[in-house]
Amino acid sequence: VVVSVISIGNELLNGDTLNTNLVYLGQRLADAGIPLQREFCVPDEPAAIRAALHDARAHSEVVITIGGLGPTSDDLTRAVVAADLGLELREDPRVAAAIRAYLARRGVTVPTEAVRLQALVPRSAEVLDNPNGTAPGLWCELPGPALVVMLPGPPSEFCPMVDAAFLPRLLRRQPATQARSRVVRVAGLGESHVEARDVQTLSGLAGIEVAYCARPGCVTVRLSAPQHPEALDAAEERLRTAFADLALPAACQTPAEHVAILLRGRGLTLATAESCTGGLIASVATDIPGSSDWFAGAVVAYANAWKENLLGVRPQTLAEHGAVSVPVVREMLAGLHERFHVAAAIAVSGIAGPAGGTPQKPVGTVVLGISVPGSVELANLSFPGNRRSVRERAAATAFVRLRQALLDHSQEPGP
Amino acid sequence: VVVSVISIGNELLNGDTLNTNLVYLGQRLADAGIPLQREFCVPDEPAAIRAALHDARAHSEVVITIGGLGPTSDDLTRAVVAADLGLELREDPRVAAAIRAYLARRGVTVPTEAVRLQALVPRSAEVLDNPNGTAPGLWCELPGPALVVMLPGPPSEFCPMVDAAFLPRLLRRQPATQARSRVVRVAGLGESHVEARDVQTLSGLAGIEVAYCARPGCVTVRLSAPQHPEALDAAEERLRTAFADLALPAACQTPAEHVAILLRGRGLTLATAESCTGGLIASVATDIPGSSDWFAGAVVAYANAWKENLLGVRPQTLAEHGAVSVPVVREMLAGLHERFHVAAAIAVSGIAGPAGGTPQKPVGTVVLGISVPGSVELANLSFPGNRRSVRERAAATAFVRLRQALLDHSQEPGP
Repeated sequence: VVVSVISIGNELLNGDTLNTNLVYLGQRLADAGIPLQREFCVPDEPAAIRAALHDARAHSEVVITIGGLGPTSDDLTRAVVAADLGLELREDPRVAAAIRAYLARRGVTVPTEAVRLQALVPRSAEVLDNPNGTAPGLWCELPGPALVVMLPGPPSEFCPMVDAAFLPRLLRRQPATQARSRVVRVAGLGESHVEARDVQTLSGLAGIEVAYCARPGCVTVRLSAPQHPEALDAAEERLRTAFADLALPAACQTPAEHVAILLRGRGLTLATAESCTGGLIASVATDIPGSSDWFAGAVVAYANAWKENLLGVRPQTLAEHGAVSVPVVREMLAGLHERFHVAAAIAVSGIAGPAGGTPQKPVGTVVLGISVPGSVELANLSFPGNRRSVRERAAATAFVRLRQALLDHSQEPGP
Repeated sequence: VVVSVISIGNELLNGDTLNTNLVYLGQRLADAGIPLQREFCVPDEPAAIRAALHDARAHSEVVITIGGLGPTSDDLTRAVVAADLGLELREDPRVAAAIRAYLARRGVTVPTEAVRLQALVPRSAEVLDNPNGTAPGLWCELPGPALVVMLPGPPSEFCPMVDAAFLPRLLRRQPATQARSRVVRVAGLGESHVEARDVQTLSGLAGIEVAYCARPGCVTVRLSAPQHPEALDAAEERLRTAFADLALPAACQTPAEHVAILLRGRGLTLATAESCTGGLIASVATDIPGSSDWFAGAVVAYANAWKENLLGVRPQTLAEHGAVSVPVVREMLAGLHERFHVAAAIAVSGIAGPAGGTPQKPVGTVVLGISVPGSVELANLSFPGNRRSVRERAAATAFVRLRQALLDHSQEPGP
């Protein structure tokens, strides 16, 4: 079965909104062995929605629309799709009651017409409950057989509905169409080098397809074998052997998630002292569920006074070497250990730009300090790109290096 | 002129990567008055790339491909597009030299074949330099007239190339096709309420089209008037009058950016004390260029010991009320002021989930404290959704409330 998505909304095309729903759904479908084949993104215009629906239905049995089910006048999906499929709309009193109950729980009032519009259901469609918002999902089985499903756009409504209602129903309707692909994530090595090693490692294994996705600190290698799914086990094992401890465990999506497992397993706690990353490293750490077991806290020492008062950086070190220097970052690390009694620490100071660069220390200069039991490592790094890129690369590199330090010093005792 | 984008890469469809390039380009094109009309997203497969190229060219004069220009074997865009357009590829020695120089500057070595592949240029194409990576952009003018432009996928290469090479060339090639749309961003009001007020406010103004995009803490209202561009001034002014200080200044994309302007204008500094948001609020603040002028620092007090030692929260307050409580957050706020001498402060403690909820304090419970000269505000809030949603909504709400507090107490003296 071929699956297409139509993302609907001016905000996706005019730069107002990132399409996070597409990533969420794509990953869930790939994991389920029913990969997403194509996406169309169109503005809130009836003609554009209709054209995408025709294109998508011409080469897919399953079409999922995302967005345009809300209460405002530019939410057109329900009406346009139902009309195009020849399905009459009528108000479903059960849906209307659910919407009113949701609004009452949240203590919110909306215009009556907004409730009525969102309670309209195409004839013969099944309703997918929306416990996190107002507009329900609409599951329309059509002759062919074909399936058109309309899902709401707000991610806090869309994602839970995919997991609780959409995917279970889809998997009951039909089996996976593809052997699951395998993923090997490699930390701290460039894309070209990962591929060079892959080619060597996989030579002689027929029918293996390899795709790459590079992000700061981590290259994702995706193996598939449409004709020879039985070869996937051997291919994955060869890669994991070849990359050895550069490969993340299968359960980890990011180096940070592996750091979480390593710290938890050894009973170590982590703290961060951040200047240019401004809390981003702590935010990535605490985005991981259960991080309170191993993450103690962070000091975002943007002002020099904070570096002195909270971390014990000496004023003369700041004066002599500047805030972005190995000696200052060494003292930030030491301050974390002495004052907060953590076993592992990250400290970072740098120039994220756009201002603040000098010939000696241009924008992108970042000093990174990593310490784990038995090792202190300080590195003078340089990252390309704009402010956001420098911050993101610095944060990604911090987790890559902390992970490697934890692996290299796994014999040392904890605190 | 109609502009379409083809995003190329399995990683965009299988959930590995967010399409941040689409947002970046969409915003730049909208701002330039040459709005993006359609996007196609396809996997790294020659047939899929060809089909999307045909569909896109059938209804657009300008087609932009993003991605698939890199050095690995799944980077197919250059070869597939050139073959389909009937343009022979040959190695450009100037491009090869630029790639080698870039790699040498970064101290990186790659296989020779990777350089050769990325130096292939279609006959008659213009090269768009890539100072931030290896693969250049390729600008192909075709009979018709039509234009196909291939741009590299890594955001740190794509975004600067859009600004430095692609957009200036596009604007020289042709004038804007649409009067610029106008945007009014409204902080801290729900989407339905924004629309209800809009309808009332704009009644009597003919030909105004309104689109909405709701994100935590902020609703973007986009006004366009394809037939009556002269009515846009009046429409925008009416909305700004109606929403009064709920509307962000035109230069601000987010409530946080407005907070930055308000703090800078009054010479105030801000600090944050974060538990469940784990540095996210500080990270949002420091993502704003120049934030070191007004952002002093943050304490991410995940462990209770940090709340006590760094912020002076009393152990008995923690024991009596729990970490997620108004009394604890009040002491976190007070600690920031007393110990760090800032004029404005945000403190937050909550239960982001998935674990940690209780019947009295379910997942999503967040206590938020905001203080500015002349006002301390403490609020017990409840946010829907998963861990990430709760954290993001808490951070967004913090800036909305801080912004309102600064506006409401603008007469108070600074510290």
